[in-house]
Amino acid sequence: MKKKSMLTAVVMWWFSVALGQGTDSIKFTNAASLTMIGKALPTPFAFHRLDTTVYKGLSPSENQQARCPSGMALLFRTNASQIDLYATYKFDPSMNNMTRIASAGFDLYIKKDGKWLYANSTVAPKDTKSLTLIKSMGSGTKECLLYLPLYAELDSLKIGVAKNATLEAIPNPFTHKIAIFGSSFTQGISANRPGMCYPSQLERNLGIEVCDLGFSGNSKLQPYFAAYLADVKVNAFVFDAFSNPDAEIIKARLLPFISIIRAKQPNTPLVFVQTIYRESANFNETSRNFENEKRAAVENMMKEAMKQYKNVYFINNPALPGTDHETSTDGTHPSDMGYANWAKNLGNALVKLLPIQ
Amino acid sequence: MKKKSMLTAVVMWWFSVALGQGTDSIKFTNAASLTMIGKALPTPFAFHRLDTTVYKGLSPSENQQARCPSGMALLFRTNASQIDLYATYKFDPSMNNMTRIASAGFDLYIKKDGKWLYANSTVAPKDTKSLTLIKSMGSGTKECLLYLPLYAELDSLKIGVAKNATLEAIPNPFTHKIAIFGSSFTQGISANRPGMCYPSQLERNLGIEVCDLGFSGNSKLQPYFAAYLADVKVNAFVFDAFSNPDAEIIKARLLPFISIIRAKQPNTPLVFVQTIYRESANFNETSRNFENEKRAAVENMMKEAMKQYKNVYFINNPALPGTDHETSTDGTHPSDMGYANWAKNLGNALVKLLPIQ
Repeated sequence: MKKKSMLTAVVMWWFSVALGQGTDSIKFTNAASLTMIGKALPTPFAFHRLDTTVYKGLSPSENQQARCPSGMALLFRTNASQIDLYATYKFDPSMNNMTRIASAGFDLYIKKDGKWLYANSTVAPKDTKSLTLIKSMGSGTKECLLYLPLYAELDSLKIGVAKNATLEAIPNPFTHKIAIFGSSFTQGISANRPGMCYPSQLERNLGIEVCDLGFSGNSKLQPYFAAYLADVKVNAFVFDAFSNPDAEIIKARLLPFISIIRAKQPNTPLVFVQTIYRESANFNETSRNFENEKRAAVENMMKEAMKQYKNVYFINNPALPGTDHETSTDGTHPSDMGYANWAKNLGNALVKLLPIQ
Repeated sequence: MKKKSMLTAVVMWWFSVALGQGTDSIKFTNAASLTMIGKALPTPFAFHRLDTTVYKGLSPSENQQARCPSGMALLFRTNASQIDLYATYKFDPSMNNMTRIASAGFDLYIKKDGKWLYANSTVAPKDTKSLTLIKSMGSGTKECLLYLPLYAELDSLKIGVAKNATLEAIPNPFTHKIAIFGSSFTQGISANRPGMCYPSQLERNLGIEVCDLGFSGNSKLQPYFAAYLADVKVNAFVFDAFSNPDAEIIKARLLPFISIIRAKQPNTPLVFVQTIYRESANFNETSRNFENEKRAAVENMMKEAMKQYKNVYFINNPALPGTDHETSTDGTHPSDMGYANWAKNLGNALVKLLPIQ
């Protein structure tokens, strides 16, 4: 027995070193029990965005993306000085144009003077489950907003604080809610950390809940996505719907897409956003011509859509991520700098159109 | 013979598909034969920053960093419509807080209307050597500035253009040259692509050549780095010298470090930059206190240094990456957004201090 106790003590010590605080003094809480924002409709598994057992028709890659918690965040209150995480993944891709902090990591904001202030962001090395998110915080209760991974699928997530510390859900403070259906731009490829995809920046800037329904490469006005959105109750929908399809798809699908949503939601504002200027077009003439032709087709189709349907809007500004040509990571996807401009420019346009503040 | 020709044709076809243009019509040029900027002193191997066979005393990790071409760029002129690269690596690390485009990739600017305009950036998947950097460009001669990887060590690099296209070195257009010795901030951790580390942004913003002598975690006022810098001929040195060491190291090493440089360079301007505000200090009290105490020590030491030595300057602005608390990737290192602010704020300060434009 004595030997076993010794072994247990050594194991406990090792965990304590690994976690940066005594494991015997930590309690872990299932993150799914806390308040979750950024979700359009409930799902059986907490960290999925869309219930693919109810909404059918998605391709295998769309199904995988639907299981990533892009743009979702947890809300809780704690008086702990240190917060640990225990995360396991079902899908954890390596990406050339994105940090692993953004694809698989966690991004913490804490309320200060009424505003969400950046606290820290981190990710554990692959095959490591425990990590310390933040430590050495002062005493007092902290209201926390924890953004989840943009491109990884979680299997489980637990939040650890000292046993004598509090950890509890807080009510969702946001009164207005919008959903953005879109491409990799919306899902947040090339953001540096999860909270910097433009939907999440918009969330903090405007003080409204934003559901990120970005599907990298797969935002093509599909009827099954329209059928899903038709069931979602929000103050408005925003569409980054012209980045992935070509002009022919847009011509064929835009009006039927709107009609599916309008059949269930006759008045909800639908705000379509022009596809952005891609920096690769600075010198790649094929890319430039393709995008220019598409933008012209979009302008024509949006005129038609706004004639046929009320409360349909068009933000025709390809320069949402800025005009200095320095904001791209890979010629297509903005960096945090581009997404920050996008969130500001789009936010300014949305508050003029919608009663969301 | 017929069979062999058939096989050759198939292999040629495969290469042509893989490279996006006919291999039989591509010629590859050793990139080391082109004009290279951002290097402080010559090295036997073109893509190293520092000759560790001459300058001794560096630790193994510093030696590895010295072999990364951080901040270095190639200058050439071509009338090709497509540019391919063939790159092999000796060291190609996976990093959690950085894209692989930035750590191991390539970043192209092309001159337009007298300014360097972003063209494209990319990296091949691991274990793939060939990649197309840009294609479908218009006819005419392009002046190219190609930034090299920030955290990988190249074994070789070749540039491929069509056989009937030109590819030639162009003279270095920069008349002024500065060197920045510094930490991971200077080497460019968390930049989204190679050309967005702040030394390279400064290079484009001010139109001066900038040598990036960033050594992640290892910028600690070491005497062997001072001995190296004393041999470097530039218009000014900038030092991000207070990010890695603690207050005790700064107190012990700052004046001897300056004295080693001053022994060979009595008048070259030496511009020291205060360590930046780290966003983790928003809530991590240990980090905040450590950094505050260090900054106070730096202020005292810099007063002493400026008393003892002429042409020594101090830019005491911890907010170089901005003040909105949104510019960090991981609580310590800025994103492109933070580095863009850093380059602008530092550039404004430098042009007031130095006759470099």
